[in-house]
Amino acid sequence: MSKEVILALDAMGGDQAPDMVVKGANIARVRHPDLRFILFGDESKIGPLLRRFKKLAAVCTVQHTDEAVMSDDKIAVVLRQRRNSSMSLAVKCVGQGEAQGVVSAGNTGALMALAKIGLKTLPGIDRPAMGSIFPTQRGESVMLDLGANIDCSSAHLVQFAIMGEVFARNVLGVSEPTVGLLNIGSEEGKGNDTIRGAAAALRESGLPIKFHGFIEGDDIAAGTVDVVVTDGFAGNIALKTAEGTARLYGGYIRSAFKRSVMSRVGYLLARPALKMLRDRLDPRAYNGAMFLGVNGVAVKSHGGTDYKGFANALDVAADMVRQGINPKIIDELLRLKIDDTSEPKRAAI
Amino acid sequence: MSKEVILALDAMGGDQAPDMVVKGANIARVRHPDLRFILFGDESKIGPLLRRFKKLAAVCTVQHTDEAVMSDDKIAVVLRQRRNSSMSLAVKCVGQGEAQGVVSAGNTGALMALAKIGLKTLPGIDRPAMGSIFPTQRGESVMLDLGANIDCSSAHLVQFAIMGEVFARNVLGVSEPTVGLLNIGSEEGKGNDTIRGAAAALRESGLPIKFHGFIEGDDIAAGTVDVVVTDGFAGNIALKTAEGTARLYGGYIRSAFKRSVMSRVGYLLARPALKMLRDRLDPRAYNGAMFLGVNGVAVKSHGGTDYKGFANALDVAADMVRQGINPKIIDELLRLKIDDTSEPKRAAI
Repeated sequence: MSKEVILALDAMGGDQAPDMVVKGANIARVRHPDLRFILFGDESKIGPLLRRFKKLAAVCTVQHTDEAVMSDDKIAVVLRQRRNSSMSLAVKCVGQGEAQGVVSAGNTGALMALAKIGLKTLPGIDRPAMGSIFPTQRGESVMLDLGANIDCSSAHLVQFAIMGEVFARNVLGVSEPTVGLLNIGSEEGKGNDTIRGAAAALRESGLPIKFHGFIEGDDIAAGTVDVVVTDGFAGNIALKTAEGTARLYGGYIRSAFKRSVMSRVGYLLARPALKMLRDRLDPRAYNGAMFLGVNGVAVKSHGGTDYKGFANALDVAADMVRQGINPKIIDELLRLKIDDTSEPKRAAI
Repeated sequence: MSKEVILALDAMGGDQAPDMVVKGANIARVRHPDLRFILFGDESKIGPLLRRFKKLAAVCTVQHTDEAVMSDDKIAVVLRQRRNSSMSLAVKCVGQGEAQGVVSAGNTGALMALAKIGLKTLPGIDRPAMGSIFPTQRGESVMLDLGANIDCSSAHLVQFAIMGEVFARNVLGVSEPTVGLLNIGSEEGKGNDTIRGAAAALRESGLPIKFHGFIEGDDIAAGTVDVVVTDGFAGNIALKTAEGTARLYGGYIRSAFKRSVMSRVGYLLARPALKMLRDRLDPRAYNGAMFLGVNGVAVKSHGGTDYKGFANALDVAADMVRQGINPKIIDELLRLKIDDTSEPKRAAI
């Protein structure tokens, strides 16, 4: 029997919280019978919801708090005035070892700041990064950073590459993951000093990493590499551009089938296949960005997600806990003895 | 009768050149009876192709040259050793007023460098930008820069905003175009100093521009604004990520219809609608990036395009010539008397 996994949930984070948090946990409970939850938030709102899901209630503890982090709260406000917020308490709970992972659909910057302080960064890592699995023409790949670090040095990008490689090997199950640096061209001289410096470091440092070189935006969905490394500015824009494009195309497909009686009939005949297509295009399937480089499992769900998306973020957290991803990253960093020759720039948060 | 428009074509640029250049010109000839072409390149290759298209040959002049810019040529090599290349001569021809626009599917950096030197930048513009029209949920928008300038100051971004606004008003026909700065969040404090500086300048300068504020990657395809302003690094990654996502989804759609006999029949019934969908998703329809800010019309076609895509790049060039976009940008800049308070950074090319 597998050991039980305890996740601390910020029940007040996200547009549809706490409703989607409770319903999402109920889906995750069925998928992962070893999961237990500690829900942080307003008991008067969470309690009535839990009473509708008896089996879920049996594996849940509620820790009441009136406070919550607002989506537009600045980091300084969160750290000073939101110490008893549902998010702060959920992170703290992992820092104190009472839960093995935290999941929140609230303010991203706040969650990253709380995770850095409450969980600490792993030895050898200057900046934790946000990573996510995404679908490609060849299967699945992982991309990091997705927005936590807008200015990065070459050394930061190298650290992201190592964390991404360990993740792809251990969670995606790729035996020798290839790593690419996102750039505006694949030739060696392309890009700015930072990215060229990171490429040189990855090429020359003798790291046991299969470094592919530079990749371009269209290589992301092509699945050219297993690990896409980028700073948080470009990574966030790539991620959201892909989401927006997917939405545009979904709309095109729907309107195409409404064009004529024949195309409506065609739609009915092809419906099972199109249902599968819709599931494949569903962005909720890839909800849940992992914080890589903090000493604990922290997963950020999309703020606008519903309970199905939130359930997927819980899957990601459960997987990360079970795979013991952090000890593996630490081992790798110690083994590699990375020199940090970078000049640290201003942190994004 | 409309005045004739003469375009100088780099017949040797692009993977399928000169074949696709000649065939593309033949499509454009039918669409625009006022177009004339000067083809620069290897006469022994262009001549036999032109003999297959008599009507096209009647509106073409060929200027022979053995030299061509290679796709991996560095700018310094192009400027020093490729003075008689098909690309250099085509740009020069516009600089000397013998043609009104140049179109090339060759080396992007080389074309930008040659255009800057041969056509000069417009007064008030420090850096020309690459822009392109793209499809959105609301219609069409324009985005710039797409890769010519990887490091930009706030003032450069403001100049891009002005050029994009003039373009949207005059070519897309939007009466009061909205302008957005691509960022990793829509809140005021998001992003780096450069982008926040540009936002402040656009907000406070009293420019007659409808500045929307920051937009995110998913706003591009949503059509939240008519003009998306970004540096060339993020812009290039956004553009190519969207292309890659489109390709992935096209593949999903094709495989969905092959899943069962019923879905194949459904496909047949819906075929006309799906044909329209395919045309809509065809990246060739949006081929042709405009160089905004140089004193002449220069259009870069995708290097891997075929003749249909190249014909669309010729459409873009013809439109820009007819709309007299450059004099309008100059007027706008003079009217606005933009202060350039930026510290220019290293140019990308």
